[in-house]
Amino acid sequence: VAERGALMEAEIREQPRAFAAAVAAARSVEAERPSAIVLFARGTSDNAALYGRYLLEGVAGIPVMLGAPSLANLYGAPTDLSGWLAVGVSQSGATREIADCLEWAEHHGARTLAVTNEDDSLLAQVANRALVLGSGPERAVAATKTYTAECAALAALAYGWSDRRPDWAAVQAGLDEAAAQEPDAELSEALAAAPFALVLGRGYHLPLAHEVALKLMEACRVWATGMSWADLMHGPIAAVPERATCLVLAGDTTLSASAHDLAERLVGLGIRRHALASTPGVDALELGLRPLVDAIPAQLAVLAAGRRLGYDPDAPVGLTKVTQT
Amino acid sequence: VAERGALMEAEIREQPRAFAAAVAAARSVEAERPSAIVLFARGTSDNAALYGRYLLEGVAGIPVMLGAPSLANLYGAPTDLSGWLAVGVSQSGATREIADCLEWAEHHGARTLAVTNEDDSLLAQVANRALVLGSGPERAVAATKTYTAECAALAALAYGWSDRRPDWAAVQAGLDEAAAQEPDAELSEALAAAPFALVLGRGYHLPLAHEVALKLMEACRVWATGMSWADLMHGPIAAVPERATCLVLAGDTTLSASAHDLAERLVGLGIRRHALASTPGVDALELGLRPLVDAIPAQLAVLAAGRRLGYDPDAPVGLTKVTQT
Repeated sequence: VAERGALMEAEIREQPRAFAAAVAAARSVEAERPSAIVLFARGTSDNAALYGRYLLEGVAGIPVMLGAPSLANLYGAPTDLSGWLAVGVSQSGATREIADCLEWAEHHGARTLAVTNEDDSLLAQVANRALVLGSGPERAVAATKTYTAECAALAALAYGWSDRRPDWAAVQAGLDEAAAQEPDAELSEALAAAPFALVLGRGYHLPLAHEVALKLMEACRVWATGMSWADLMHGPIAAVPERATCLVLAGDTTLSASAHDLAERLVGLGIRRHALASTPGVDALELGLRPLVDAIPAQLAVLAAGRRLGYDPDAPVGLTKVTQT
Repeated sequence: VAERGALMEAEIREQPRAFAAAVAAARSVEAERPSAIVLFARGTSDNAALYGRYLLEGVAGIPVMLGAPSLANLYGAPTDLSGWLAVGVSQSGATREIADCLEWAEHHGARTLAVTNEDDSLLAQVANRALVLGSGPERAVAATKTYTAECAALAALAYGWSDRRPDWAAVQAGLDEAAAQEPDAELSEALAAAPFALVLGRGYHLPLAHEVALKLMEACRVWATGMSWADLMHGPIAAVPERATCLVLAGDTTLSASAHDLAERLVGLGIRRHALASTPGVDALELGLRPLVDAIPAQLAVLAAGRRLGYDPDAPVGLTKVTQT
């Protein structure tokens, strides 16, 4: 009998390879620089899309809209997307709703691109072009390597549409090192003990905060919220449950002063707080690329927490690998 | 001694007037139809901005990006915003961060518009034009009437940039009726009893789901998450706490079948579920306008829940009317 979460662990540790394949795929896809981009995705892919939104705007200077599937599919919005590129992001490429969004976008003037791990999928067929990630099959329901692959592909598109050249080799080295580590025992214990978790990140680390929260819900059945700590201060801080565990993604060193203020505030409220700093050496990377590496220790801690709780993150109760709504 | 939440209650019941003033203000502001829009806001105003995003795209067909303050202020993103309109939404107009976002946007080619309740505020001074809501002073920390006013102003801009003419008088009548009601006792009891609340909406009702969740956190210190139920199915459904109260905003009748499936799923999980259908008569309104009216019964229920819990929603512990981060 395989260990619980054996697939998820293998896929977490395959991420250096998934990263390399995705960057290579993105660099070989022919896609002209668009004047603006709309991204469509759900679940883990939506968190990758949010990361892409930050990189595409922050690095390439392209405005990015996160598409609302209901506007496309339910209300048939009359959006003028001339000059826009619509990107559908889906590991399986089988989510009907996202394919429908790309068809709607094309009908409204956009060119379309699929970012998917399956080259013969519905999404790849519907789109004008497909960026096929080449991650190899992903079998754990809680996605990890395709999250990293989708993020990497979108980052590579962003740099390709800019005059900046990132140090991919340094990212690769960071991933190799992170993927060889064991999970942080103290952190996984705290995550497993929490009835509720709050995962805080800002800027380039915000998408990872959402993704870690989603993994906690899938793999540990711990209700979790990912949030910017700026947004936390605008109201929600009044209601954080005392028994919550708070994980602060502190890898963005331009935010150190702000993260310090946050920590003091949480301590004052009696909240159990853990910080996830960047993997040593990752501080040399460009800010926008650090979350690619920081994903791995967070995923490992979530997996270990799920195992402590006796769950199988490879097949969470009530979830399937492809969701249709 | 005034009753707890007296200010909040008065301001909830002033919403018909705040609505009328905001629509009039929006119709008199001179703003040319932009090719695309970026919205900047925090907290309650961010929920109003999300509503604006749905109306501006769904009614006027204008693509809308929700601006990331960190890209503007922290990373200085090189975004090309030629032809764009940047809109800052802030009740007080005093949030430095949002004013900075508009200055950044103007520097990158956008025209700028402030949507604010204070005509001599920082935001109004910084922007090319100001849409001043005319709601009268808002004194409860938990904002209600300026939420409705901001939503109404953005909706009026959306219709003004389209060839559709909404039935404002019918919205006004719906607001008048809703504002005269007493809170739903069963719902407020359920909200007060919950250690955790999940507020679900889709499409045009999604922003109200986020706003009701924020009000619950501010006024009741109940941790709450606002979410699309499509997103809920992509993972979080596995982790909804058994003792949660779930409020489904079911006012969008095009989603009735989907809402029914959701209800069955929640019942199967043993989740305590309440539905908030639209106020009677509101079904005659265009879909996008119904959430303006549906806000009121939700706000009244949250206020009543806060009172049951012995809190004062006018001055929640740890919060101030203007937040700077």
